[in-house]
Amino acid sequence: MGVITLLTDFGMADGYAGVLHGVILRINPQATVVDLSHDITAQDVRGAAFVLSTAYSYFAPDTIHVAVVDPGVGSARRAIAVRTECGTFVAPDNGLLSCVLARERVLEMVFLTEPRYWLAPLSATFHGRDVFAPVAAHLSLGVALRALGMPLSDPVRFEVVRAQQLGDGSIRGEVLHVDRYGNLVTNVPGAWLVAGRAWRVRVAGREMRGVCNAYARVAAGELLALVGSSGYLEIAVRDGNAAAVLGVDWGAEVRVLP
Amino acid sequence: MGVITLLTDFGMADGYAGVLHGVILRINPQATVVDLSHDITAQDVRGAAFVLSTAYSYFAPDTIHVAVVDPGVGSARRAIAVRTECGTFVAPDNGLLSCVLARERVLEMVFLTEPRYWLAPLSATFHGRDVFAPVAAHLSLGVALRALGMPLSDPVRFEVVRAQQLGDGSIRGEVLHVDRYGNLVTNVPGAWLVAGRAWRVRVAGREMRGVCNAYARVAAGELLALVGSSGYLEIAVRDGNAAAVLGVDWGAEVRVLP
Amino acid sequence: MGVITLLTDFGMADGYAGVLHGVILRINPQATVVDLSHDITAQDVRGAAFVLSTAYSYFAPDTIHVAVVDPGVGSARRAIAVRTECGTFVAPDNGLLSCVLARERVLEMVFLTEPRYWLAPLSATFHGRDVFAPVAAHLSLGVALRALGMPLSDPVRFEVVRAQQLGDGSIRGEVLHVDRYGNLVTNVPGAWLVAGRAWRVRVAGREMRGVCNAYARVAAGELLALVGSSGYLEIAVRDGNAAAVLGVDWGAEVRVLP
Repeated sequence: MGVITLLTDFGMADGYAGVLHGVILRINPQATVVDLSHDITAQDVRGAAFVLSTAYSYFAPDTIHVAVVDPGVGSARRAIAVRTECGTFVAPDNGLLSCVLARERVLEMVFLTEPRYWLAPLSATFHGRDVFAPVAAHLSLGVALRALGMPLSDPVRFEVVRAQQLGDGSIRGEVLHVDRYGNLVTNVPGAWLVAGRAWRVRVAGREMRGVCNAYARVAAGELLALVGSSGYLEIAVRDGNAAAVLGVDWGAEVRVLP
Repeated sequence: MGVITLLTDFGMADGYAGVLHGVILRINPQATVVDLSHDITAQDVRGAAFVLSTAYSYFAPDTIHVAVVDPGVGSARRAIAVRTECGTFVAPDNGLLSCVLARERVLEMVFLTEPRYWLAPLSATFHGRDVFAPVAAHLSLGVALRALGMPLSDPVRFEVVRAQQLGDGSIRGEVLHVDRYGNLVTNVPGAWLVAGRAWRVRVAGREMRGVCNAYARVAAGELLALVGSSGYLEIAVRDGNAAAVLGVDWGAEVRVLP
Repeated sequence: MGVITLLTDFGMADGYAGVLHGVILRINPQATVVDLSHDITAQDVRGAAFVLSTAYSYFAPDTIHVAVVDPGVGSARRAIAVRTECGTFVAPDNGLLSCVLARERVLEMVFLTEPRYWLAPLSATFHGRDVFAPVAAHLSLGVALRALGMPLSDPVRFEVVRAQQLGDGSIRGEVLHVDRYGNLVTNVPGAWLVAGRAWRVRVAGREMRGVCNAYARVAAGELLALVGSSGYLEIAVRDGNAAAVLGVDWGAEVRVLP
């Protein structure tokens, strides 16, 4: 058996994503391959890291997650595989696993240096096909992580921006992601927003009073703040698009006042 | 075994659709999960109902169809599961199953009220992940529909707009859907269009003479009317886009004259 | 068992692609269905032929590849199935298999003329659903190719444009495909570009000196020529979009000078 997920910026028009399925099924015909997303913005390592962080924990812990947003392909950038209690991850060593590494205890971590688990010849531009997919397929067949290469202790990470609780009881956070509906997903943990308190949420010069528990708490077209499905504060417009209404994108500051 | 289809307005960029696969496979690793579409226009319950109505009958009757276009998530809107002779359906109770309910005999129908078949904690904004996907997975493992909640007899339905045969032998219908090619799919049953008769079809001030049986019956760039793959009258432009040429969208009136 | 790939111009919004999964799984519940792409430009037979040519060889040789870009559906155009040493292909006979036929030895080739392997009633506009998907499913169950119809020796092919090595040591080729990243994939075989030689590559009035082996060989935003993942010369912009920078599309001439 074995579930393998794929997260890339390949898009679906060129057949690149389908080729990964082919490579995996050729090595392990019993694998179940799931497309997490192939519509990450081209080269957006940070965006892919975010999407991965909201998804992996809903899969069984023996799932293998392949993530390939790889602007440095063919350069000296390393490729890595990481085993945690919540899944095994295969990716270029470019920060893509930053959110996972910030949250999960690492059980084992290696560089991918053993070409016997790759396709040959190795291209300089498509390691998703030639390295990451075959490595994941071999892992799903029971190959040990340590067989794939040398132990590693210092993967590339970017700083995962955390919200701050300030001395005056307020919170300073930022927008991490804008989703398909235009909802703004922030880094403010819902657990910080004690129920019953009259929080005010400020973004882009607008203020929302109170943190709702569902879109339906406001009228259509109105802004609201609520704790979203990943457990973090979100800003939304009921039946509308908050990113468009507010004119903001990821990186925008969010203030929460008591 | 068990086939589960997914129809949503999640798009593919955020990983939301992939998460449904994870939730299902974690509960039933043997399930086969099929993406019917995740590209329904955001919040378009009516459009999702149409796409579902053209697709479900091509799956085996023991298939479980999960449909989630859910602007009322987190409100008092109910969630339902419906068993028919042609498939089992799991969806918010917001009219999404209107076309199915208009066509199929209901064998059993319940509210989803048993949290033991959901994920915990339950979010207020992502019942696709927390309710609909796990319920479908449990159904695929053989859980009885009646175990999921209370019997239900009055689901929300919107009126499925039917074409009318008028006294003068003409037909009045409307455009239900514009597909990827710009074809206009109407609600006029092909069975009403007796072969051999010189039907004239009028849309947006243009008239087509005759109902063809294939695109190739006219020259490239020309408008034609034909009975489409779902058995209903369609208006198309050979090697072109009828919606763009005629400047119409769903809801446009169609007249068929003998 | 049995892997079946799907390559179409259906898009994902209308549920047409999902219906193919349903038809296949109903006939062979054990099949593994892989979406190669459904985002081929509408009616672009040439583009689909190219994507298929870069993908099929990464699947096991017993894979069945269904390709449906079918502007002539419902006309007298034939439908075909072709068995090669590198896969079995099912498609309209409109040139879609030109690249495969130019490269692979044909072991067996038939018209699809046996309606017992199709859905009934047969629509005039959706043979993907009614002919190609069910035929592929029956093949995956072990039905012999010759049972599907009459032997065929003259499939429709368009000329696969090949690069030319000229008397002065230069090469004349053209852009075959622009991918998601804006990379220009040409028909100039990488094997012709002897390493160590100071090749100059000209496209759209711009000249690149040398053929790199990775994007990282130039600075961000710079043009480069390299041998891409399919073994052919590509023109790219590091961390950018070469098609946009150069203002070219497929069909553009490429010159390589020694």
